[in-house]
Amino acid sequence: MRRKTFAGMNCSIARTLDVVGERWSMLIIRDAFQGVTRFDEFQARLGISRNILTDRLEQLVGQGVLERRPYQEHPARYDYVLTDKGRDLWPVMTTLRQWGDQWEAPDGRPVLAEHRSCGHPLGAVLVCEHCGGQLDHSSVTLSPGPGARSGRPPVRVPATAD
Amino acid sequence: MRRKTFAGMNCSIARTLDVVGERWSMLIIRDAFQGVTRFDEFQARLGISRNILTDRLEQLVGQGVLERRPYQEHPARYDYVLTDKGRDLWPVMTTLRQWGDQWEAPDGRPVLAEHRSCGHPLGAVLVCEHCGGQLDHSSVTLSPGPGARSGRPPVRVPATAD
Repeated sequence: MRRKTFAGMNCSIARTLDVVGERWSMLIIRDAFQGVTRFDEFQARLGISRNILTDRLEQLVGQGVLERRPYQEHPARYDYVLTDKGRDLWPVMTTLRQWGDQWEAPDGRPVLAEHRSCGHPLGAVLVCEHCGGQLDHSSVTLSPGPGARSGRPPVRVPATAD
Repeated sequence: MRRKTFAGMNCSIARTLDVVGERWSMLIIRDAFQGVTRFDEFQARLGISRNILTDRLEQLVGQGVLERRPYQEHPARYDYVLTDKGRDLWPVMTTLRQWGDQWEAPDGRPVLAEHRSCGHPLGAVLVCEHCGGQLDHSSVTLSPGPGARSGRPPVRVPATAD
């Protein structure tokens, strides 16, 4: 399948989607967070064809999201384990799950998450790491950063500002 | 393009991806958060074909993520505006952006986000809404919820627990 790469886009959301935005890749990462490491278990849980799974695992390894560790030599067999880069996707997974729980779970949450240390059902909220204030769309302003390039702008410039 | 729906999967991550997991849809939502509302501006910013953009906007309206508001009658023209359901995707967008800033921005962040009220560069962290503790993968336990169904399990049950 021909797929336009987003890697050249001057936007961290687009570049993230270029690495993990394929939907099966997201579900592989979801399962890796639950401790799944082996090809056959990924396949059984996802109900995915072997060639698609092989392709997605190779991409995630190539991008440094998963690490391949041999656990058997003849024939060669591997565990697929999240790297630091992969584990850093946990906030993405958590916010995706919470949105689905909120808006796409008419029969109730399929999965209950609990905060281990306080024992309460998990509600994860985004706060500012500096002041601790709770964040939403209106509390943040965007401006071009050091990696901004000319051309199609990552930050919208209202017509009145031109 | 034939695309398997994830809607029947018993998982809030999969169902979320079924609604907004198409990569162009994510970028449309990104731009909607920056105030883009009109077809031609979405098209110019995304560099996307008119028919793909039309299709993705219709899907997002159909799913209740965007609302279509007429601003002109002859010919009919519309603004596309985030609904409450759409605005609730802000944490997803923010965590995607932060991951890209961390791992896929070798030339620096394309966009700087600043917390409006405290004036510091934005670092958004996930905390427990109950106790305020900072969250990561190891601080959360998962178990089947009220919407869990038999069949392929959303929560992994280790073989030793069977």
